[in-house]
Amino acid sequence: MKLGEDEKVILIGVAADSGCGKSTFMRRLTKVFGGKTVGPLGGGFGTPGGWETNTLVSDVTTVICLDDYHLNDRQGRKVSGLTALNVKEQRFDLMYEHLKALKEGKSIAKPIYNHVNGTLDAPETIEPTPIVIVEGLHPLVDPQVRSLLDFTIYLDISDEIKFAWKIQRDMAERGWTLKQVQDSIEQRKPDFAAYVAPQMEFSDVVISVLPSEISQEEVGKHLKVKLIQRTGLAGLNPSYILDPTAKVVVEPDPSQVKVGPTVGVRLASYKDKFYGREVATVELDGKLTDIQDYSNIEKFFSETAVKTPGELSAELIKVGANSPGSLDGTGFFQTLTALKLREFYEAATGKTVAAA
Amino acid sequence: MKLGEDEKVILIGVAADSGCGKSTFMRRLTKVFGGKTVGPLGGGFGTPGGWETNTLVSDVTTVICLDDYHLNDRQGRKVSGLTALNVKEQRFDLMYEHLKALKEGKSIAKPIYNHVNGTLDAPETIEPTPIVIVEGLHPLVDPQVRSLLDFTIYLDISDEIKFAWKIQRDMAERGWTLKQVQDSIEQRKPDFAAYVAPQMEFSDVVISVLPSEISQEEVGKHLKVKLIQRTGLAGLNPSYILDPTAKVVVEPDPSQVKVGPTVGVRLASYKDKFYGREVATVELDGKLTDIQDYSNIEKFFSETAVKTPGELSAELIKVGANSPGSLDGTGFFQTLTALKLREFYEAATGKTVAAA
Repeated sequence: MKLGEDEKVILIGVAADSGCGKSTFMRRLTKVFGGKTVGPLGGGFGTPGGWETNTLVSDVTTVICLDDYHLNDRQGRKVSGLTALNVKEQRFDLMYEHLKALKEGKSIAKPIYNHVNGTLDAPETIEPTPIVIVEGLHPLVDPQVRSLLDFTIYLDISDEIKFAWKIQRDMAERGWTLKQVQDSIEQRKPDFAAYVAPQMEFSDVVISVLPSEISQEEVGKHLKVKLIQRTGLAGLNPSYILDPTAKVVVEPDPSQVKVGPTVGVRLASYKDKFYGREVATVELDGKLTDIQDYSNIEKFFSETAVKTPGELSAELIKVGANSPGSLDGTGFFQTLTALKLREFYEAATGKTVAAA
Repeated sequence: MKLGEDEKVILIGVAADSGCGKSTFMRRLTKVFGGKTVGPLGGGFGTPGGWETNTLVSDVTTVICLDDYHLNDRQGRKVSGLTALNVKEQRFDLMYEHLKALKEGKSIAKPIYNHVNGTLDAPETIEPTPIVIVEGLHPLVDPQVRSLLDFTIYLDISDEIKFAWKIQRDMAERGWTLKQVQDSIEQRKPDFAAYVAPQMEFSDVVISVLPSEISQEEVGKHLKVKLIQRTGLAGLNPSYILDPTAKVVVEPDPSQVKVGPTVGVRLASYKDKFYGREVATVELDGKLTDIQDYSNIEKFFSETAVKTPGELSAELIKVGANSPGSLDGTGFFQTLTALKLREFYEAATGKTVAAA
């Protein structure tokens, strides 16, 4: 969809590490805006400019990967001696110019970082769309870039969970040793802590993925997911259970939400402090066995920004039970975040997005 | 109020130990039926038949104390060697005849047990009223008597709390030694366990008073009160928080419900098993400091049987902050039980009781 005359561009920053189910999250985020074709810019492999792009487009959204703003290619970073996590390896000035141009309704010629070769390829043209999402390691680091963002999200994966996921992927699928997995995690930690994690302070919504506290299995097998929502932001009405001020814990009955033998489902809702400011937090610990039961989870939450009852569950079911996190809190809160984003978009633009 | 032609008498049994705030409970139970004058039969001290009666009457309710059906007077029990807790010391057959007569709209000539002298005094005439409450140690023991009761309530005070209350009353106010208090409790225990406690099995509602689990003070200083409600009884729709099947725990925000420094307020709601049958339980642990804040507790509960929003809190406030249990779960659940009883009465009779 082309941007209309004088139509506002809403710019959304999503900070997230790689290998953390980001592509499913992007799918969930963009789907609620009714985008029928979510896919790579240019049509993907086999079409001009297709296969090597990092940009995803749908009818109304554009998702730009900030890796495209790396200062150096992989070879160049060997010279600089800095990791891709380091803020010195990002072109924040160009990022700012480009995002400012998109907000003004102008197209840009954006570089492409080729993840396969580690090279910086010839630029591609990005047209402004009503919603532009910029995702990557550093969307909220630079104050100038940050000032352009209308809504900010941080996908926070705890070290325990990253470790468990990397073991699964790198040992089981890529044949790494445990030592290699551990080393690769330890190597990234200092730069991640220095440059990426501090962005949580500037996020309107943080999805925090932690080890389950109610699982009888090893750490990392099941998750506790928190949705930490800024309070007092116009257009963002935090979701809660029962009451926005109380601390509430809910364990649904197994007759309503089926669970396996080693982990149940526990929901929570409470006010909290996060980086010195007040936030509203909701939690889902554990895992469902039947994606259809999400309707019996959804009903406990108020302010879900649904347009029809059960829309949240319906969206989850549409994305499918095989998608990452579709039976636990990641899928649930990613979809809830998508609905809150749609609500925010409508408040910010005065437009109405059709129910998905 | 006289019983109308063919008007149904609803008979309610309340099993409760003495010295457990029963008179306040009776006041709360009868008040919701709009009785303007709750007081001793005959008008009390100075009026004929007044001062020595155990019977309380209001416009529509009569409260009969089952001590009046003791077989022997105090002197007689010295001969029998049995305590007043023993079922052999109760005249269940007379109790049955009398309650049956009242249900049929007939008056009775009921004996009076004089608590001061321990004597059995000349009978008093009891007229049937729309609601007759029989309270005492054994309303639910005898199967024949039980078969006449439309609704049954058990006020269960745990041993720890009884002990704490007796220390307060008998040591602080009556000058007993700790040993004397302990002995008097230990002496009553076997008969209480044998004859009184088993009635819980036959109760539609049990109010259970336990030590607080969230208090930082000595055992007995603060309470956790449970309302255990039978499920599947026509006319009794159990109260719950948020969802009748889930386990829910709520800690209201101190800005909504003010609390002292040593104990907060925690609510709970869950399904449970009780004497082999399914029950719906709600809990209030802790203590408020301001009776006005009950409205912010009440709002969390569904199926409270109120006729107007906030009626439960208003009833509590009317009885007053100085009444026993008025700032903790005893007052709250006694009043909730009163409202459920009114709801049950309306369902059983098809009549409408005006909002209090």
